[in-house]
Amino acid sequence: MSPIPNARVLFNFHPESYPIPGETTVYDTTKTIDLQSVPLNGGFLIKTLVLSIDPFLRYRMNRGADDRVGGFQIGAPLDGFGIGVVLRSETPEVQVGEYVYGITIIFQEYTVYPALDQLQILKKHPELPLSAYLGAAGMTGQTAYLGWKAYADAKPGEVAFVTTGAGAVGSIVIQLAKQAGMKVIASAGSEAKVEFMRSLGADVAFNYKTTDTRAILEKEGPINVFWDHIGGEITDAGIEYAAEGARILKFPLISLKSLHIHGIFVPPLLQIPGYRDEFYEVMPRKLVSGEIKHVEDLTTGLDQVGEVMLAVLKGTNKGKAVVVVAEE
Amino acid sequence: MSPIPNARVLFNFHPESYPIPGETTVYDTTKTIDLQSVPLNGGFLIKTLVLSIDPFLRYRMNRGADDRVGGFQIGAPLDGFGIGVVLRSETPEVQVGEYVYGITIIFQEYTVYPALDQLQILKKHPELPLSAYLGAAGMTGQTAYLGWKAYADAKPGEVAFVTTGAGAVGSIVIQLAKQAGMKVIASAGSEAKVEFMRSLGADVAFNYKTTDTRAILEKEGPINVFWDHIGGEITDAGIEYAAEGARILKFPLISLKSLHIHGIFVPPLLQIPGYRDEFYEVMPRKLVSGEIKHVEDLTTGLDQVGEVMLAVLKGTNKGKAVVVVAEE
Repeated sequence: MSPIPNARVLFNFHPESYPIPGETTVYDTTKTIDLQSVPLNGGFLIKTLVLSIDPFLRYRMNRGADDRVGGFQIGAPLDGFGIGVVLRSETPEVQVGEYVYGITIIFQEYTVYPALDQLQILKKHPELPLSAYLGAAGMTGQTAYLGWKAYADAKPGEVAFVTTGAGAVGSIVIQLAKQAGMKVIASAGSEAKVEFMRSLGADVAFNYKTTDTRAILEKEGPINVFWDHIGGEITDAGIEYAAEGARILKFPLISLKSLHIHGIFVPPLLQIPGYRDEFYEVMPRKLVSGEIKHVEDLTTGLDQVGEVMLAVLKGTNKGKAVVVVAEE
Repeated sequence: MSPIPNARVLFNFHPESYPIPGETTVYDTTKTIDLQSVPLNGGFLIKTLVLSIDPFLRYRMNRGADDRVGGFQIGAPLDGFGIGVVLRSETPEVQVGEYVYGITIIFQEYTVYPALDQLQILKKHPELPLSAYLGAAGMTGQTAYLGWKAYADAKPGEVAFVTTGAGAVGSIVIQLAKQAGMKVIASAGSEAKVEFMRSLGADVAFNYKTTDTRAILEKEGPINVFWDHIGGEITDAGIEYAAEGARILKFPLISLKSLHIHGIFVPPLLQIPGYRDEFYEVMPRKLVSGEIKHVEDLTTGLDQVGEVMLAVLKGTNKGKAVVVVAEE
């Protein structure tokens, strides 16, 4: 058998904003490969079948993106999450006909790998297309399914709030929440997406661009599980309308973290046995000794209340504002 | 003894923005009281000594502020957190000369209360001024001290990040964190406040208006305890640079809540025993059966990678984007 073309997608330059097809990346057909005689050197040869296209690829195109995030090299092919089928193998790790998948699949038609390394064998369900293993049965699905399994602690009758509910991850989370017997509130940014979320079973689906999130959560909450894909203002709203003991699942994060968030409100803290007594035993003593410093802004005269309040609201007071009405 | 003036501060109308001293609230001296003969009817008479002036008072002035938040009544005196000394008593609950404090102190010079009810007896430290019991030894201090005690789980050598660190609460939190042996990062909105935070012992004090919070946290973090007084963007930054297992103490909140926040990142989840196997056993089956629906956006041809990436970045893809390079 003679050499055949081995097309690939090369990285050509660092884009400033959107990558330009054919310029930022170039489809290159100059290389060839002889599938029967290409040396494997103890490795294996695959035919690339499907490739996942994710926003993270753009990040790897940035000037200065380093090895840590897999910055692309100019002139070299892209790589990413994909699946190939094994055509030849010189390693017992991999058999001909098996599928291999992973995040180091080269964006070219045929590739020789020296070892499985970061790739893995895929045991494919006979009725599920390979492409699904890049999405709902791949990283996307793992984010939803494993994140939910690890942290949601879902209970029937509880309320879930799913942001970006029409996205690849959020749409699975809506279904997992429904299947766990929860009431599901879901948000997205268009009417079409709202309809899609309803079709997935969301009990309350709304467009966050035209509907006030807080008003929805006030009416439909409090929420027990909060799938927070967005951050910022909507995180605050979710926390505000979270039920005691709620679980907030935050995605994406740069690393896996479990954090504990506690709202502080004094009256119930004072009910915890020993808390009030300890405070009044310890704090005055530390203030007197100077171990803890504090700053007061004292104003004398009940007639000054209006002025002091104005100062407090404008933030011009220097320390805790107190009106001294009278000496004993 | 004859009647003497009993001045008070009346609520006059609902302000639109800042309250105007003398208009929104009126200092009224038309009432008198005879301290010796005013009937107590089984209650007690106090002389008001100090009053706390807090932003919450403004909230209570709003039109529509109801009983739940203690909305002020037009024509009636203000009330709030304060301390008085008992001049006469007909109840064994309270002795003459004792201090009473609480959130229902009327903003007038002398008041008869029918019972202690929501007020409490204050056991004052002989060397600490009463005013301190409205601040560092009062609600402000309780917020800092009890919130910290309940949730910070501070360990020597760990890192704390305190926002609004020059405020009445934050300034105490900085000191509690230092005394727990932590490294303290603190933020505020002016150079003077930065200096003040340094004087309290903050190891890293910065002006968030002129300094990038993320850059500071990147350099000085990760953070183990996050005293989050602000919300929004800074919450995201704090979460991003939080250490595994970090505690986020959020103040103010409308109610006491303990929430658990989990960042979701797939690779470590796949390392949890059983997780990977379960996913590949369950998810493909559910996708095949249709129990979980998913949406794919397939494009055929390796030469389409650039176009598909552009679609993904612009959000015009309809479902998980996959490039099909070849059939088997």
